[in-house]
Amino acid sequence: MSSTFGRLFRVTTFGESHGPAVGVVVDGMPPGVAVEIAAIQRELDRRRPGQSALTTQRQEADQAELLSGVFEGVSLGTPIAILVRNTDAKSKDYDALKDVFRPGHADYVYFEKYGVSARDWDEVEKNPVRCPDRAAAALMAAVIEHARDEKDSVGGVVEVVASGVPAGWGDPTMAKLDAQLGEAMLSIPATKGVEIGGGFGMVAKRGSETNDVLREGRYLTNFAGGVSGGISNGAEIVVRVAVRPATSIGKPQTAATREGGSTTIEIQGRHDPCICPRVVPVAESMLAITLMDAWLRQRAVRGREK
Amino acid sequence: MSSTFGRLFRVTTFGESHGPAVGVVVDGMPPGVAVEIAAIQRELDRRRPGQSALTTQRQEADQAELLSGVFEGVSLGTPIAILVRNTDAKSKDYDALKDVFRPGHADYVYFEKYGVSARDWDEVEKNPVRCPDRAAAALMAAVIEHARDEKDSVGGVVEVVASGVPAGWGDPTMAKLDAQLGEAMLSIPATKGVEIGGGFGMVAKRGSETNDVLREGRYLTNFAGGVSGGISNGAEIVVRVAVRPATSIGKPQTAATREGGSTTIEIQGRHDPCICPRVVPVAESMLAITLMDAWLRQRAVRGREK
Amino acid sequence: MSSTFGRLFRVTTFGESHGPAVGVVVDGMPPGVAVEIAAIQRELDRRRPGQSALTTQRQEADQAELLSGVFEGVSLGTPIAILVRNTDAKSKDYDALKDVFRPGHADYVYFEKYGVSARDWDEVEKNPVRCPDRAAAALMAAVIEHARDEKDSVGGVVEVVASGVPAGWGDPTMAKLDAQLGEAMLSIPATKGVEIGGGFGMVAKRGSETNDVLREGRYLTNFAGGVSGGISNGAEIVVRVAVRPATSIGKPQTAATREGGSTTIEIQGRHDPCICPRVVPVAESMLAITLMDAWLRQRAVRGREK
Amino acid sequence: MSSTFGRLFRVTTFGESHGPAVGVVVDGMPPGVAVEIAAIQRELDRRRPGQSALTTQRQEADQAELLSGVFEGVSLGTPIAILVRNTDAKSKDYDALKDVFRPGHADYVYFEKYGVSARDWDEVEKNPVRCPDRAAAALMAAVIEHARDEKDSVGGVVEVVASGVPAGWGDPTMAKLDAQLGEAMLSIPATKGVEIGGGFGMVAKRGSETNDVLREGRYLTNFAGGVSGGISNGAEIVVRVAVRPATSIGKPQTAATREGGSTTIEIQGRHDPCICPRVVPVAESMLAITLMDAWLRQRAVRGREK
Repeated sequence: MSSTFGRLFRVTTFGESHGPAVGVVVDGMPPGVAVEIAAIQRELDRRRPGQSALTTQRQEADQAELLSGVFEGVSLGTPIAILVRNTDAKSKDYDALKDVFRPGHADYVYFEKYGVSARDWDEVEKNPVRCPDRAAAALMAAVIEHARDEKDSVGGVVEVVASGVPAGWGDPTMAKLDAQLGEAMLSIPATKGVEIGGGFGMVAKRGSETNDVLREGRYLTNFAGGVSGGISNGAEIVVRVAVRPATSIGKPQTAATREGGSTTIEIQGRHDPCICPRVVPVAESMLAITLMDAWLRQRAVRGREK
Repeated sequence: MSSTFGRLFRVTTFGESHGPAVGVVVDGMPPGVAVEIAAIQRELDRRRPGQSALTTQRQEADQAELLSGVFEGVSLGTPIAILVRNTDAKSKDYDALKDVFRPGHADYVYFEKYGVSARDWDEVEKNPVRCPDRAAAALMAAVIEHARDEKDSVGGVVEVVASGVPAGWGDPTMAKLDAQLGEAMLSIPATKGVEIGGGFGMVAKRGSETNDVLREGRYLTNFAGGVSGGISNGAEIVVRVAVRPATSIGKPQTAATREGGSTTIEIQGRHDPCICPRVVPVAESMLAITLMDAWLRQRAVRGREK
Repeated sequence: MSSTFGRLFRVTTFGESHGPAVGVVVDGMPPGVAVEIAAIQRELDRRRPGQSALTTQRQEADQAELLSGVFEGVSLGTPIAILVRNTDAKSKDYDALKDVFRPGHADYVYFEKYGVSARDWDEVEKNPVRCPDRAAAALMAAVIEHARDEKDSVGGVVEVVASGVPAGWGDPTMAKLDAQLGEAMLSIPATKGVEIGGGFGMVAKRGSETNDVLREGRYLTNFAGGVSGGISNGAEIVVRVAVRPATSIGKPQTAATREGGSTTIEIQGRHDPCICPRVVPVAESMLAITLMDAWLRQRAVRGREK
Repeated sequence: MSSTFGRLFRVTTFGESHGPAVGVVVDGMPPGVAVEIAAIQRELDRRRPGQSALTTQRQEADQAELLSGVFEGVSLGTPIAILVRNTDAKSKDYDALKDVFRPGHADYVYFEKYGVSARDWDEVEKNPVRCPDRAAAALMAAVIEHARDEKDSVGGVVEVVASGVPAGWGDPTMAKLDAQLGEAMLSIPATKGVEIGGGFGMVAKRGSETNDVLREGRYLTNFAGGVSGGISNGAEIVVRVAVRPATSIGKPQTAATREGGSTTIEIQGRHDPCICPRVVPVAESMLAITLMDAWLRQRAVRGREK
């Protein structure tokens, strides 16, 4: 199997949930970049189970240990390896490999339309669904709680946005920025779709409505989602990911037996009624990794900072 | 720039629309596979402009010449190179590079729901929009013609399906089959989204509705779109691509000038009112390339035919 | 920087000598292969400093910890991660990064001519220079000891051989088996040359002498070193690596100062008078990695065990 | 098979000797670089058979046609495709595939020691063996002619040198500059060895002799061959390639029959008595490709011209 993502900025993951540790090797980070283990830990904490009543109640420490590539808080240019020990590896009461092949997660996150600049991003971390709109967040929480009470799960859409990306990143034919974003986002477990900018919402529209007009240095609309012809165009990069309802639900379900018959099962344990809040930091990371890779490739092409 | 797609089955393209030729090098085809240049030509003909009143009226021969990798209709195992000469390279009345950076295409193709096995695939080539539902095809054609008459364009969704893929292709972490499909489809110009199986339609559903039940060797539903946890599950692979409305339209539009002001432009020439009919064979090819790559990787893992 | 070797069988290393740990992630191992941590430990022990009077006297534990990819002694198909803690990371009395950029190792290993089938391989581990010829081993040891006594170092040639590789591994144009061996061997610190089979010794010979004759299923000679046209030919794979004399020597040396002047330095500490004995297991590993990668690619081409 | 070399600067070749054409796609060339088809043609002419009495007398036009990636003599940043038609593809009187799998070439080129700065490079193209030392060239020619007269072949060593490479190109662990040179050179047909700087000649030397001393900004010796620890050190890059005697010789030879017996064959046709003169431009190209790739990677790391 291939466990590496990226071309110049390559991220290789390893580890099974039943094994002693999971980890990542990040190869391609230029030297001299500040790398703060505390910041990495904060992101892991955001992805961790048991954060609120809306996610699974399993408790995992997810304590990151920096093994290489950073000295006194600054990257060396060598591979950065980070290790997270599985503290309760032995005691898990489910078959771990099954988890690898059947990732199922769900949620309902407010589908904030792209191009809305007045968002309050600080709000995102203030509610358990990570939605910048407080009223919508309350609604989402209610939907998730309702599903949880019925031992069911819900899906959702996660949107991530990158500001400040200059025009020119990405390639026009094969390593397109949007194609790499597609690969990155669909690498996240339980995702079943990805769209950039206007996405599927554009299919019933007309060209005269969706051609982004550039006026006085800024785009009036952002149907392109910051990517034109595979290359960043200077507008915000806007990516939305479709997350399916978590497949692991407590409700009785029909399942096939190995002998070819049918049976009814009830999956035990505390599962995520909605995976979306935990997908948010993962999607942010995948966006960052993809942009890092495009940035390095652009530096190779242009030979100077962009 | 990177112009190569795939890991074991690698497709490298070259050529500009204003240059003498475009071409492709396919590396990784095992030896002994029948490769028929006439079949390749048929696919090129399907993608060609000027096929019907619903596509651009530019005439291009797109005559494929097989340069290497095939002897007497059978692959040698060496790279397969195919060349298409640009017959009217000199006479083009528009700036070709602009075309490279601003791909814009549009259409409206019937959004056939996944899992419908009774489709009449032969119907697809009988109508200019390539829709298997004859009634819907007529409607689509009307929508496109209407947009064309108003010198505008429309978007659409293209769906491609692969039958007969066995369970087991694709990797669980990084080179996931769905992630590679995402990259492949978003490499097609003018695409702004991709979804597998239930896709974005699942986000408002519950886990109890979208868990595909396996009964007597077949899935009753196909919300997973044939891919579970990054690996093919034996069901049909169902991929849908969001195609934006073509950006090149005849209608007057506001455009920025280099000096920072605004002007009104009317783009001349015969453009596609809807790019979807021509995207169909391209999306089919990208699906085939992705599956070919996953198949070869699976052979490396298992060491025998799957 | 790129820290990955291989295409299908990819080995990614990480860690600095002054950091908390070094490690490796092996991606691409098919599932079901026996992986014994004790055997890995044995190889690490062979490469370790302080094994005999002929190598550096620094003591490092090099205790390998298996983090992922193996369950109950059998590979899972997922990435295999192995970690080695640097036990005396803090106490090292030299600048570790300097070590990274100035690898210098040396030795004198008997240059056993290829194709000698009567060798006693068990002898290799019985003497500190890892030479299968006991008399030559004694000579080598004397040469190394003489250099060590004069606070100097010597170079040498390391030969590694793979038996049992069937014909057909490797590609004819770019990922040639010999080209990959060249890359692999020259990735070992302090190597300055690599040759396959007859190598540089053939340049003064004639074609009529060096064309290997196949008689009754076996080659009478092995000037090709087991690789013809980039592809294994069924004979033993024979690779020799030129190892330069270790650059770190105790003898007084002239060195440039940062200001542009000259000074005389004497490097303190216990250095390898000859690096070759420790290169032997590393070169064996690089040979194994290269063959593993070629084997997996061949399985992708042929779809069955070779 | 894999037909691509390089990571950022990727060269993909295609074509069989019996097919209609051979070609190359060069991906990764930054835009704005002058690319002169006449210069490419000159290099092809240097590699062409039939240049002198010392090479094979087969006549091939090798006329290069530039298909993409260059406009008005300047690179566009898109893939550069170059095609060479096989003019006498049909008439060849030998089995072409055999040629692919049994490359055999030979020669004797003077082994000029590295670090000799007073060489007259213009001399190289003035004699058919491409040796900068006129007296040695005459000797080489005599050796080759002697072998040819006896329907035999000779091997040789080809040395290529790159001046002006700044310190800092290449990676310290896996994509080492010397490792990539090893891969590049051993990708050339009929090569059986490669060495950098002092190479195999250093193995019988001592560290006190081979440590290159830096004085007043330049190295007094160049045993490192311009590469230290995988990274260019500012000195000339010096690479030598061992070329085996051509395997195709007119002299009677013993050969195995398919049935397992033996026979005597005499290969007809005009073969190279020494392949080295034609290897020279190929080795120069491989050196240039490798440096181009390292240069682009260095630009990605440093973000500015180096």
